[in-house]
Amino acid sequence: MRIVLDVMGGDHGAETIIEGARLALQSRASITQLFLVGRAEEIEAAIKHTGCRDPRVTIVPATEVLTMEDKPVEGLRRKKDCSILRAVEMLKEGLADAMISPGNTGGIVAASIIRLRPLPGVDRPGIATVIPGPKNEFVLLDSGASVECRPAHLLHFAIMGGIYSREILGYNNPRVGILSNGTEANKGTELTQEACKLCQMADLNFIGNVEGHDLFHDRVDVVVCDGFIGNIVLKTLESFAKGLGGWVKDEVSKNPKRMLGAMLVKNALRTIKRRIDPDRRGGAPLLGLNGTVFKAHGSASALAITNAIGECTKALQHRLNQMIESEVAKANEHIGNAPTANAKP
Amino acid sequence: MRIVLDVMGGDHGAETIIEGARLALQSRASITQLFLVGRAEEIEAAIKHTGCRDPRVTIVPATEVLTMEDKPVEGLRRKKDCSILRAVEMLKEGLADAMISPGNTGGIVAASIIRLRPLPGVDRPGIATVIPGPKNEFVLLDSGASVECRPAHLLHFAIMGGIYSREILGYNNPRVGILSNGTEANKGTELTQEACKLCQMADLNFIGNVEGHDLFHDRVDVVVCDGFIGNIVLKTLESFAKGLGGWVKDEVSKNPKRMLGAMLVKNALRTIKRRIDPDRRGGAPLLGLNGTVFKAHGSASALAITNAIGECTKALQHRLNQMIESEVAKANEHIGNAPTANAKP
Repeated sequence: MRIVLDVMGGDHGAETIIEGARLALQSRASITQLFLVGRAEEIEAAIKHTGCRDPRVTIVPATEVLTMEDKPVEGLRRKKDCSILRAVEMLKEGLADAMISPGNTGGIVAASIIRLRPLPGVDRPGIATVIPGPKNEFVLLDSGASVECRPAHLLHFAIMGGIYSREILGYNNPRVGILSNGTEANKGTELTQEACKLCQMADLNFIGNVEGHDLFHDRVDVVVCDGFIGNIVLKTLESFAKGLGGWVKDEVSKNPKRMLGAMLVKNALRTIKRRIDPDRRGGAPLLGLNGTVFKAHGSASALAITNAIGECTKALQHRLNQMIESEVAKANEHIGNAPTANAKP
Repeated sequence: MRIVLDVMGGDHGAETIIEGARLALQSRASITQLFLVGRAEEIEAAIKHTGCRDPRVTIVPATEVLTMEDKPVEGLRRKKDCSILRAVEMLKEGLADAMISPGNTGGIVAASIIRLRPLPGVDRPGIATVIPGPKNEFVLLDSGASVECRPAHLLHFAIMGGIYSREILGYNNPRVGILSNGTEANKGTELTQEACKLCQMADLNFIGNVEGHDLFHDRVDVVVCDGFIGNIVLKTLESFAKGLGGWVKDEVSKNPKRMLGAMLVKNALRTIKRRIDPDRRGGAPLLGLNGTVFKAHGSASALAITNAIGECTKALQHRLNQMIESEVAKANEHIGNAPTANAKP
């Protein structure tokens, strides 16, 4: 497998990303080539520091960086030699099989849509983030690629999320639900209600509306929503988990008795922390594109990058895109005559 | 103060609600009358069991109950003698100053809008839920009353939430933000972007877009969104907190060492649990109505009802509705010429 890694755009700099690459190369013989895209001097310095000397590594120079402050489309137009565009072009030209970037999400989405195009039958890509609960892991999508959606887009997210849950997470017949403000069929917006009708027609284990209360109680494996809501839900959870972690730390440091107790339960809390740590998967796939694209967390650690590369190789092994193309085509045929499929709510 | 309590529609039955009423009457001399609305026999039996004998209590019979399964508007049309409608009518007729119901949220919203009408200048009410973080408490609104919103509705939520934060939570100059998928000004949907423009014109400490990552890090005191998203955010947090609580319990029960540790940190965790317990406030106000209406949690405990009655008396003491009316009128004047105020996105 030939993987392109966008070395720029992470919060912790090129060295962290390249250290992640080094660890991945060490453990994965299936990687035949690893392209590091970004400012050549920075990459060379980071390779030196990390000792990431591997014959499979090639530097692909890109002089510009799309920052978090850049507006995606406008930024891509101005910064033609930015690392995200270079990475995407490697995929487009068939020089690599998959790419990973910790950079500007909107930029990755825009560059991928413009250069790679969505898969036939799919209009909009969706970011599929795996969220761990006490009993199951569910896929939340779209968690930030497509802000304004039509019903057919949610249907495609449902199908793609189902495939991801089945192939990558190993759920046999994943329960797919649309995130709404209640489980009753009359709940939701025009968008979610129309999307529900489409999902009922598709070949899915579709359980209808799910609400926030269902998420962490093993009731649903694929949670479908537009990218605006998905992004809010994901970041709110991250914020709450982080805030709560700090809060617990403050409270248990208040006296020696509590500090002793904290020491004794440390392993228990660490088990949970590891399970919910976003670094565990390191990245989330942008499903529905004519290419394999992973978004890594902006603040990804080296371990997160290593794990994201691992997730990426799994996606390639399972030929997710071929499955998505064929299952979406089937669903589109089913709903072909449904007047609501493309209705703008 | 004269308060109406809808005794039906809670998950734990009339007795729990009436026990909550008993405790509130014990501690609050400011309550001059308490009306218990619902099936008379059930109420009488519950009064007997709980010993809620107080000369301030009056039973108001209502033979029907709007259940969680009823569609709000249709249900209200069919069940003319339901407790929610009876309670709302007590307010309308000036027989009571405020009402509390743990029943069907959509039903409470619909009945209140139809019978009480929104306050002059306000189009849609918003449920203002107080969410505790490690450092501050923020108000999330709308957390479920108005599913599809226009920009002006979000502006009104911003104003009402600001007043609630200032008057009830005691924040001097509350920071008001619109919940979006990023803090940059170009982020968001058409709805949130237009609403941002309106909020910038209003007399608010408006900080622009906030994202999920900001919520639990003391960066915002009033989080504004439509009721669809607010409901999802609120329930997702409740679900995560509950799921995590169970998860921690499972992990710390795995061996004697951990169990001992758990005993030692019990008080620390209890402090946090109490702070984040929804029963602490017991209910959330439906702001923007020509009357004081509180929604109690469907699964409210007796203590939650007691606390909701307390919150209700605070709202009355602070004359929230007069403030809302005057501040909304001022803002509407400011934005009067703004073409986006009522634009349907």
